[in-house]
Amino acid sequence: MTEVNDKVEKLNKFFEEDAYVKMSGIEIVEVTDEYAVVAADIGSQHLNANGCVQGGMLYTMADFAFAVISNALHPVTVTQGGRIDYLRPGICKKITATAREKARAGRNTVCEVVIQDDQGETLCLCTFNGFVKDIEKI
Amino acid sequence: MTEVNDKVEKLNKFFEEDAYVKMSGIEIVEVTDEYAVVAADIGSQHLNANGCVQGGMLYTMADFAFAVISNALHPVTVTQGGRIDYLRPGICKKITATAREKARAGRNTVCEVVIQDDQGETLCLCTFNGFVKDIEKI
Amino acid sequence: MTEVNDKVEKLNKFFEEDAYVKMSGIEIVEVTDEYAVVAADIGSQHLNANGCVQGGMLYTMADFAFAVISNALHPVTVTQGGRIDYLRPGICKKITATAREKARAGRNTVCEVVIQDDQGETLCLCTFNGFVKDIEKI
Amino acid sequence: MTEVNDKVEKLNKFFEEDAYVKMSGIEIVEVTDEYAVVAADIGSQHLNANGCVQGGMLYTMADFAFAVISNALHPVTVTQGGRIDYLRPGICKKITATAREKARAGRNTVCEVVIQDDQGETLCLCTFNGFVKDIEKI
Repeated sequence: MTEVNDKVEKLNKFFEEDAYVKMSGIEIVEVTDEYAVVAADIGSQHLNANGCVQGGMLYTMADFAFAVISNALHPVTVTQGGRIDYLRPGICKKITATAREKARAGRNTVCEVVIQDDQGETLCLCTFNGFVKDIEKI
Repeated sequence: MTEVNDKVEKLNKFFEEDAYVKMSGIEIVEVTDEYAVVAADIGSQHLNANGCVQGGMLYTMADFAFAVISNALHPVTVTQGGRIDYLRPGICKKITATAREKARAGRNTVCEVVIQDDQGETLCLCTFNGFVKDIEKI
Repeated sequence: MTEVNDKVEKLNKFFEEDAYVKMSGIEIVEVTDEYAVVAADIGSQHLNANGCVQGGMLYTMADFAFAVISNALHPVTVTQGGRIDYLRPGICKKITATAREKARAGRNTVCEVVIQDDQGETLCLCTFNGFVKDIEKI
Repeated sequence: MTEVNDKVEKLNKFFEEDAYVKMSGIEIVEVTDEYAVVAADIGSQHLNANGCVQGGMLYTMADFAFAVISNALHPVTVTQGGRIDYLRPGICKKITATAREKARAGRNTVCEVVIQDDQGETLCLCTFNGFVKDIEKI
């Protein structure tokens, strides 16, 4: 088994315990040293009162993509905050969120997450900042 | 029936259709002309892999509190973006989110949302900005 | 001399060395245990190409108000990030920025800053988060 | 004269009237259809009380880079808000800010701005959102 696949398996095992992500139907698709992709098939349980994907569902996907890439790159990273900008309503069958670390300095990491629908249209752009606890392990 | 209760009833009816909020177990507690409070009893389905309330669940509560106060004050408000800062991990049985409009100018509204645990400790602070569509109706 | 005035004097002395704030004409007006107010008389040097107070000038006032209240409450606080939402263009002769700490947990502090014109209209709402270095001194 | 250079000249002429940017010593370096770069030579007037580049100066550079790319891409864009995350203190002789539009949907635009020192180290990451007024002109 390659080192990369091994990492994905460990992440999958760890995040299997994330009950809210599981209830939301979000799964890890891909993890590399540069980005993490998570995705969800959209059903009626994800919609808001206007029939679009609920804003909290979109944020939860972004937050999870950030958690996956951060913990892939530096094991124990605590989310300090996040910002989400909504561009378009989500009216689609599948959504993906792709997280990339944009910069890290000491214990501080800042990631960008792009949320797209199944046509490749950007629905949201997000920025997360986190605090790396176990920096000596990197 | 007072005008205020009538407003809460209408909001409850509208947001009953928010399936993701419903699945997340979040309910409207109180709506006045100044603030909206929503709450959720925390169960194992709300937790992350570390056993704390998942960050997306916290954001979803804040987003919903913002939607409730915004639609109470000016009927059709579109969320443009939100920022959440995490202060403490949520390890508790009940969480509330209280949203207040801090300023509105023309079609732009900015709200603050405070998320607290059942001891009154602040878990997160959030800011949301929205665009008021039906401003002529206010 | 009261303890409060003594604190303001020390802050004034420390921040006198902030050359960019000085060039921007921003001064400390008041510091209490709950809030800090800074202000600037607006001149042509503060305007953007549209004749309104430049967005960076508004942010600089907010950032400084945050630095003042943070260093008043817990001596060495490093700004980690800030968010500013613009509500109205600044077309006025004087502007004030008022910073309040909304929550602190361990080393993390989150403050709100409100920027107002000389008619009391809110121009901007800001949120800053910082890291308290010398927490043992509090 | 090429169309691109013509555009830069027009932007330079328009933003020459931005007095706060001028006082801050920030200049447009490059504008393409994909990004805008602005820069400043750092002097003692840009420093805070700790001898680092003041946070407001960094934000002002980012805000200006956003204004330049936005007005290059769609003439009248109003800044609605911005978020800056600080990674490292700015202790250097020259700073650049590079703005890229990450997504536009209808009247909403979201840009990323990266601020770097003269060693290429990232000092700050910023996200701005704006409202495009003259969308019919694009």
